[in-house]
Amino acid sequence: MTSTTFTIRSATEADWPAIWALFRSAAESGDVFAYDESTSEETARKLWFESPAVCFVVEVEGKFAGTYYVRPNQPGRGDHVANAGYMVAPEFRGLGLSVALCEHSVEVARKLGFCAMQFNFVVSTNESAVRAWQKCCFAVVGRLSGAFRHKQLGLVDVFVMYRTL
Amino acid sequence: MTSTTFTIRSATEADWPAIWALFRSAAESGDVFAYDESTSEETARKLWFESPAVCFVVEVEGKFAGTYYVRPNQPGRGDHVANAGYMVAPEFRGLGLSVALCEHSVEVARKLGFCAMQFNFVVSTNESAVRAWQKCCFAVVGRLSGAFRHKQLGLVDVFVMYRTL
Repeated sequence: MTSTTFTIRSATEADWPAIWALFRSAAESGDVFAYDESTSEETARKLWFESPAVCFVVEVEGKFAGTYYVRPNQPGRGDHVANAGYMVAPEFRGLGLSVALCEHSVEVARKLGFCAMQFNFVVSTNESAVRAWQKCCFAVVGRLSGAFRHKQLGLVDVFVMYRTL
Repeated sequence: MTSTTFTIRSATEADWPAIWALFRSAAESGDVFAYDESTSEETARKLWFESPAVCFVVEVEGKFAGTYYVRPNQPGRGDHVANAGYMVAPEFRGLGLSVALCEHSVEVARKLGFCAMQFNFVVSTNESAVRAWQKCCFAVVGRLSGAFRHKQLGLVDVFVMYRTL
């Protein structure tokens, strides 16, 4: 990572259009999210932006560069385990922002009282993401055979990743 | 299994009260579901009964004895993998109905075009369930350390179970 200066802060309503635009482009790429082109803005907003999700954005030189959310992964007797999702805008990749966002989210989840964090659906061919989450102490704890229909590669495996906090 | 005569059929609106009562008692037991006592009827219905879920019930001598649902486990590029949930009423346990429901659900999922089926949250101490799903060719593909707050036992592990169809 170069010495990129970035700021991570809580998202506000004014950030939603940029988050939604990035979500749509990630969904359209067909190589990272189960969510595809047909995902409605309402669905995306409910996942990423609305309570109980807490949403943060990262800015590089004042420009929107990425976002993440943290929320309970399960209801009730499973709500001590957090789930999180991350997106970095294409023009800001390769700067280490995924790791920075993930580390930040781990701290936020700890402060919110979560005991662990789980990623349910890490596409195995998304190697940069898998490496980033491993750097942040997440381990692959499960493999789902052919659970993702990759736009270019067809059926590929999906990892469940997990760490305690 | 004894020679219990049972019938598995599609659920109708008239079945919902019995399903909801069983759901509440399973949630209250605090040993099988993430869903706890605070779960609203609307949430349960959305999970178990409303489209895209398909819901079936099993009857023994005309009496409601259990239920299951099948639905996509993920949106979009993950919607070829089904999820399912099962409940058997306490007075009908030990008759092999869990296995019967699971085998039926696998056939239904196949007919609906799913390629695999995934259980996201099988409480590891629920040994009869784990055995039943293993009989139905599900394998433990992931272990989530301490992901369930068991009402009696405290934090216990959770299994992710999976099979192709």
